[in-house]
Amino acid sequence: MKIATYPGTFDPITNGHIDIIRRALTIFDKIIVSVSVDSSKTPLFTVEERMDMIKEAVKDIENIQVDSFQGLLVNYAKKINATAIIRGLRAVSDFEYEFQLALMNRRLNEQVETVFLMPNEKFTYLNSSIVREVASLKGDINDFVPKNVKEKLTEKLNLLP
Amino acid sequence: MKIATYPGTFDPITNGHIDIIRRALTIFDKIIVSVSVDSSKTPLFTVEERMDMIKEAVKDIENIQVDSFQGLLVNYAKKINATAIIRGLRAVSDFEYEFQLALMNRRLNEQVETVFLMPNEKFTYLNSSIVREVASLKGDINDFVPKNVKEKLTEKLNLLP
Amino acid sequence: MKIATYPGTFDPITNGHIDIIRRALTIFDKIIVSVSVDSSKTPLFTVEERMDMIKEAVKDIENIQVDSFQGLLVNYAKKINATAIIRGLRAVSDFEYEFQLALMNRRLNEQVETVFLMPNEKFTYLNSSIVREVASLKGDINDFVPKNVKEKLTEKLNLLP
Amino acid sequence: MKIATYPGTFDPITNGHIDIIRRALTIFDKIIVSVSVDSSKTPLFTVEERMDMIKEAVKDIENIQVDSFQGLLVNYAKKINATAIIRGLRAVSDFEYEFQLALMNRRLNEQVETVFLMPNEKFTYLNSSIVREVASLKGDINDFVPKNVKEKLTEKLNLLP
Amino acid sequence: MKIATYPGTFDPITNGHIDIIRRALTIFDKIIVSVSVDSSKTPLFTVEERMDMIKEAVKDIENIQVDSFQGLLVNYAKKINATAIIRGLRAVSDFEYEFQLALMNRRLNEQVETVFLMPNEKFTYLNSSIVREVASLKGDINDFVPKNVKEKLTEKLNLLP
Amino acid sequence: MKIATYPGTFDPITNGHIDIIRRALTIFDKIIVSVSVDSSKTPLFTVEERMDMIKEAVKDIENIQVDSFQGLLVNYAKKINATAIIRGLRAVSDFEYEFQLALMNRRLNEQVETVFLMPNEKFTYLNSSIVREVASLKGDINDFVPKNVKEKLTEKLNLLP
Repeated sequence: MKIATYPGTFDPITNGHIDIIRRALTIFDKIIVSVSVDSSKTPLFTVEERMDMIKEAVKDIENIQVDSFQGLLVNYAKKINATAIIRGLRAVSDFEYEFQLALMNRRLNEQVETVFLMPNEKFTYLNSSIVREVASLKGDINDFVPKNVKEKLTEKLNLLP
Repeated sequence: MKIATYPGTFDPITNGHIDIIRRALTIFDKIIVSVSVDSSKTPLFTVEERMDMIKEAVKDIENIQVDSFQGLLVNYAKKINATAIIRGLRAVSDFEYEFQLALMNRRLNEQVETVFLMPNEKFTYLNSSIVREVASLKGDINDFVPKNVKEKLTEKLNLLP
Repeated sequence: MKIATYPGTFDPITNGHIDIIRRALTIFDKIIVSVSVDSSKTPLFTVEERMDMIKEAVKDIENIQVDSFQGLLVNYAKKINATAIIRGLRAVSDFEYEFQLALMNRRLNEQVETVFLMPNEKFTYLNSSIVREVASLKGDINDFVPKNVKEKLTEKLNLLP
Repeated sequence: MKIATYPGTFDPITNGHIDIIRRALTIFDKIIVSVSVDSSKTPLFTVEERMDMIKEAVKDIENIQVDSFQGLLVNYAKKINATAIIRGLRAVSDFEYEFQLALMNRRLNEQVETVFLMPNEKFTYLNSSIVREVASLKGDINDFVPKNVKEKLTEKLNLLP
Repeated sequence: MKIATYPGTFDPITNGHIDIIRRALTIFDKIIVSVSVDSSKTPLFTVEERMDMIKEAVKDIENIQVDSFQGLLVNYAKKINATAIIRGLRAVSDFEYEFQLALMNRRLNEQVETVFLMPNEKFTYLNSSIVREVASLKGDINDFVPKNVKEKLTEKLNLLP
Repeated sequence: MKIATYPGTFDPITNGHIDIIRRALTIFDKIIVSVSVDSSKTPLFTVEERMDMIKEAVKDIENIQVDSFQGLLVNYAKKINATAIIRGLRAVSDFEYEFQLALMNRRLNEQVETVFLMPNEKFTYLNSSIVREVASLKGDINDFVPKNVKEKLTEKLNLLP
C-alpha cells in the first residue's frame, strides 16, 4: 500500500488543500493529512481545532487519515511508512520555497520523495492567510473554505478583541 | 468620469508612488490615493501623518484626492465609485503577490478591474521600507522621497529611542 | 475620448484575448485591436484572415475597431490618438518580456502609457500557439477560441500538407 | 497497478531523465517512457534511435517500458491506462511552461494527473540541448549521459557536415 | 591590492558562505567578512559569537579578515577600502532582493560595485535560517555547517527554554 | 595580473555591454571582450564586423582587448589565462539561463569562476536583438548603441532586401 503524507499548517484548511488531497488520492492508496505542531508563527487555531476542521471537511472522502506531527518531517514520514510527501504548487514563489524544503528533506532522508501537484487554477490565489484576512474584513469566504471551516472561522474571529 | 483608487500603506509615500500617480492620471479622470488603515505590520507613521504627507507631496497635481479606508478594498472602491484599482508593478516578486491580490479582489467584486502600471525604471529598487531603512542609517534619501516627506521622516526617526 | 490600442499577432485571436478586450473597455472609451504586420515568425493566418476573425469574434461588443499596423508601435499609437497600449499579463515569463517591451516603448515615446490587465485565471494557460498545437493534434478547442475561429483553424489546418 | 507515462523528446536521454525515472518508480508500479514523435524542432536523432538509446540506458531498471506516441498526450495516456504524467521540474522557467502544459492537459482530460518530481540538484543545469551543444564543441559529457548515449552522440555528430 | 567585503548576518555561517568566500578569493586579494550589527530580526547569536564562529571556521584560509559594521554598507565599504561587495546568488527570490539592494547601494555610492557569485549547486537549499530550524528539530547538520558552528549551535539551542 | 573574459555574440555591442565592461574593469586588471564564433542563430554581422565595432566603441577605455573564440568557453578562458568569466544579469530570465550556463562551465572546468555584474538600471530593457528590431523599424537608437555601431547598423539594414 502506497502511503503519502500531506503536511502543512492548515490554519485553516481551504478548498485548495482539499483539491490537492483529491488529486493525491488518484495516485496514492492512502493520504495522511499531517498538521504541523511546530510553527514559527502563532496560528489562529490550536492543533486540535485544525485537526477537527480537517476531519469534518474530508469526512466523505475515503482513504484519508488526519494526524499531527512534531520534529523533522522526514522522520515523521518514515514512522508512518509514507513513501512520499505531497506539496501543492501554485506560483513561482511557492516553487522556490518548496524546492529548498524538498532538497533539504531529501538530504535528511533519501528515501522519502517529494511529489508536487498542481491545484485547479481557480485556487491559484488561495491560501490560509488570505482567507483569514478576508474573513476578518467581513468578506464572503463561501467559495474558499468548506462550510464547517467558515463557521469556526467566524466564531473564532468574533472572540478576538 | 472615470475614477480609480490607488490604495497602499504609503509609510511614507515615495517618488515611485508619485510616478505611478502621474501615469495613472493620463488614463483616469481622477485618482483617489487611499491609505489603508488596516495593516498586519505596525506602521511608522499614523494614518493622519501619512495622509498629510501625501497631500503636501501632490498638492501641485490636479485631479487627485487623498483618502483612507478600512475593510475590504473592493467594497471601498464601490463606495467611492472607482471602476479601477491602480497598482504599480516593479519586479517578479511584486507580480505574484499583486496577482493573488487582484484575483481575490476580482472574486470578491467582479466590477472593479485592477490596472497595473510600470514605474520609471529608476524607481525599480524603491519602496517605503528601504527608504525607512536608509533614513534610519543616516543615508541620503533626497532622490527617493519628496522634500516634505524627508523632513517628516528625519523628525520621526529622531524621536525614536 | 480615451482610446487604447491592444496590439498583437492574434494568430488566431483566443477567448483570453477577448477577455482582456472586455476588461479594457471598462477603462477606455474605445479599443483598437491592432494586428501586427511585422513578425519574426511566419504566422499561420494572413493579416487579412486574422483581422476578419477578430471582427467576427467581437462583432457584438461596442466601441471596438480592428486595424493592422507596421513599424514602431509607439508611432502607430500616436497616429491613431491612443493614449495607452493594452497588454495582458498571465505569468512571470510574460511579465519580463512585456516589461522590456514597455520600457523600450516608453523610451521611444514618453506619451504612450502601457497598461497591464490580468485575464480570468481560467485563461492563464492559453495562448495562440498552444491553441494551434492542440488543434493540429485534433484536440477539442471549443473552450479556447470563438466558434468562427475554430472553423477557420480547422479549415486552415486541413489545407496544410 | 499504477502506471505513469514520462513523456519527452529525449534527444537524447540524459542522466537527469534517468534520475527522474528512478524517483518515479518509488511511487508508481510501472513507468512508460514515451518518446514524442511530433516536435516543433527537428531532432538530432530519429524516434527509433532515441527509443533504442533509452532502452539500453534503462535495461537494468525494472518496471520500465519504452514507447513512442503521436497526437495529444492525454489521449495517449488514457490508451495506455496511465493515471499520471511525470514531469521533472528544475527551474522557474521550467515551472511556468510545465504548468501551462499541465493545465491544458487537465482541461483536455480531467482524469490524468500531472505529477512533478525534482531531480537531484546536480542535474539542475542539465538538459538534452546543452548536452548536444557541449558534445558538438568536443567537451566531456561523461557525467551527463549514459555511456551508450555518449557513443551514439559522438558517432552522430561526426557524421554531420 | 583588491579588497572586497562579504557582508551578511551570518547567524550562523554555513558551508555555503564558506564556498562563496573561497570563490571570491580567486578574484580578490583580500576578503573582509563583515557581520552586520543592525538587523531587523533578533539574531540567535551575538555579533561577537558570530564573528568568533567565522574566525574559527576560516582560520585555515589565507587573506581573510573578520569584521563587523554598523550603518550604511557603502560607507563601511569605503572606510575599509573595499572596491566591491560580494553576494552569493542561489535562487530567483535571492536575485530580486539582491538586485534591489545592489541598485540602492549603487545609488548611495557609485564607486563600490556589487559582484555576484554562484555557490556550488549542492548549497542551493542552504541558508542560516533553515540550518537553525533543522538543528532545533534535532536534525543532522553535519553537512551544512563547519564542526565548530555545529557545536556552538547545539550548545545555544540547549540553553533555550 | 587578473584577467577576465567577457564573452558574447555582440550582434552588435550595445551601451549596456559597455556599461558592464566599465564595471568589470574596477575589479579586474584586464578585460578580454570575446566574440563567440559558434552560434545557434545566424548573426546579422560577421565576426570581423562585430570585432571592429567593439574595438571602435571601446578605443578610449584602457586595459581592454577584443578577441574571438570557438569551441568550449572554459577551454578558451584557460588558454588566455582568464580566471573569470564576466556576465551581465538584468532580469530573472537572464538569471536562470546564465546559472545553467555557469554551472555547466564550472563542471567542465572548476578553475574558472563566473562573475555576475549588474548594469545600470536604464539598460535593463536593452539587448542586441531589441536594438536590431528597433533599428529595422526605423526607430531612434541613439541612446542604445555607440555612434559607430548606429552607423554600421543603419548601413547593414539598408543592404537587406
